[in-house]
Amino acid sequence: MTFSVTILGSSSALPTSKRFPAAHVFNTHERLFLVDCGEGTQIQLRKYKLKLSRLERIFISHLHGDHVLGIFGLISTLNLLGRKAPLAIYAHQEFEPILNKNINFFIKNLQFAISFIPIEANQKKSILFEDQQIIVETFPLKHRIPCNGFIFREKEKTPNIKKHLIEKYCIPLSEIVRIKQGANFTLPTGKVIPNSELTYLSSSPRSYAYCSDTMFFSKLAEYVKNVDLLYHEATFGSEMASLAKQTGHSTASDAAKIASLAKVKKLVIGHFSSRYKDIDPLLTEAQQIFPNTSAATEGDIFKIEANRVKL
Amino acid sequence: MTFSVTILGSSSALPTSKRFPAAHVFNTHERLFLVDCGEGTQIQLRKYKLKLSRLERIFISHLHGDHVLGIFGLISTLNLLGRKAPLAIYAHQEFEPILNKNINFFIKNLQFAISFIPIEANQKKSILFEDQQIIVETFPLKHRIPCNGFIFREKEKTPNIKKHLIEKYCIPLSEIVRIKQGANFTLPTGKVIPNSELTYLSSSPRSYAYCSDTMFFSKLAEYVKNVDLLYHEATFGSEMASLAKQTGHSTASDAAKIASLAKVKKLVIGHFSSRYKDIDPLLTEAQQIFPNTSAATEGDIFKIEANRVKL
Repeated sequence: MTFSVTILGSSSALPTSKRFPAAHVFNTHERLFLVDCGEGTQIQLRKYKLKLSRLERIFISHLHGDHVLGIFGLISTLNLLGRKAPLAIYAHQEFEPILNKNINFFIKNLQFAISFIPIEANQKKSILFEDQQIIVETFPLKHRIPCNGFIFREKEKTPNIKKHLIEKYCIPLSEIVRIKQGANFTLPTGKVIPNSELTYLSSSPRSYAYCSDTMFFSKLAEYVKNVDLLYHEATFGSEMASLAKQTGHSTASDAAKIASLAKVKKLVIGHFSSRYKDIDPLLTEAQQIFPNTSAATEGDIFKIEANRVKL
Repeated sequence: MTFSVTILGSSSALPTSKRFPAAHVFNTHERLFLVDCGEGTQIQLRKYKLKLSRLERIFISHLHGDHVLGIFGLISTLNLLGRKAPLAIYAHQEFEPILNKNINFFIKNLQFAISFIPIEANQKKSILFEDQQIIVETFPLKHRIPCNGFIFREKEKTPNIKKHLIEKYCIPLSEIVRIKQGANFTLPTGKVIPNSELTYLSSSPRSYAYCSDTMFFSKLAEYVKNVDLLYHEATFGSEMASLAKQTGHSTASDAAKIASLAKVKKLVIGHFSSRYKDIDPLLTEAQQIFPNTSAATEGDIFKIEANRVKL
């Protein structure tokens, strides 16, 4: 089952001729979740053949234009395409009035419902969305204005029972459902076999964290601990560390330090300042601290394969 | 001296992976005038290496999102680049409040002045802007909402005096300035040589008309009579004539009819519906009525050479 991230935009506030403003698409089982929506997102969605009809939810990290100005055109296009399914938008509360003003001005006869879910800019990690397949968590970042990161996690699946133990202990069918739900099994001798010994997960849940604009702070590593794929902004190289701090951004080293502290499996850096025509120095800087790093480029797809558990 | 138009966007309301929403750049003597500003305009400006510092005025034909949603990001970028020069924006009056709301929300500390000049949606042709080099006229189109076209015209230059007549009539230097301003010349015999016989324009003024979203109406040909370059929307082919009428748009044939009636030198069609993966049929349809037609593609530059007058 798909669990992937497509990069639609890798630039910071000033787009270049090749790099679009911030937007990622998280794809889980062909359900699309848009993360940030910079200008031109709808054009990039089409370019990379992501079906607009599959778009289910939009998560906006913060209200700087380069992360959100594509949303009015995107909503207009969804309407022109005849969308009827509701669209959920998660953003800080201040966005709701300006969103509604632009929709009322630019879109006549909106044919689908938009549900606006405010993100609270508090200092806790919390759950924004949850269903049978996925959990979306949010956590605070440190930027010039309230800014939140997101983690998309697969839900834990029902465990399987080890086949050879079914035979060994002659476990009846009636007990299997209970064991899958977490029960232990008692042998006719009275000996209890603990659930953990009887069951296993066929794959461990996958996770993707999106750390939009933020300066370095070590607690961030706790928020994104052990994720499979960490996207972290790296607007600058370490030669611009003081400007990074001043503007509430990170260097490539900062991003790599978080990846390393959090023990993530893979790091992707992005949100590059337009001053870097060549981003190889940023990539090299990050890889010196965290080797398994890639630099985001428009159209890149990062697939996270299921983590099969070996018995 | 440059007199050219660069196509930034050739799509209609739904952009495609290759076609951006409406935006043209009119370049006169390296002064840039932006005509419409669909989403992604700032990215296209960079892609085609048009200097943002040269951007002087923005003209918005009407307030449908595909003609204007790039303006908030563009203004933000101009501000980040340190612009200090004022920016003039011409649009229908209703735009001013939503423009200001978005600027106030998305742009902190705007460092340059924006002068908003309302376009009146009346039924007359009028002058929007004029200086020593250029006149910009506007005229009404027929769309679902108030919509205006624009003509950019070179100003007539000071005429030259025919050199052989200076010698023939022994015209003194003191008279030459007066003759250039329109005076006749009187010979010692009392015979008057009329100004028209003494002077000529080295080149006739060039002109470019932009006809954004409109259905066909014959009076439009009067508005754009004899222009050198006519851009006219051609959202549909003639097989969709009834949908064109219903939605306030033109077919390729409609555009070509206007070009033909107006006796323009060249026609460029654009604003193509996303249903046309291949726009050759639209081009062929227009060329059957008006042969000197081109189809707009992003990055095309249409240069109008000075119309040298032969003596």
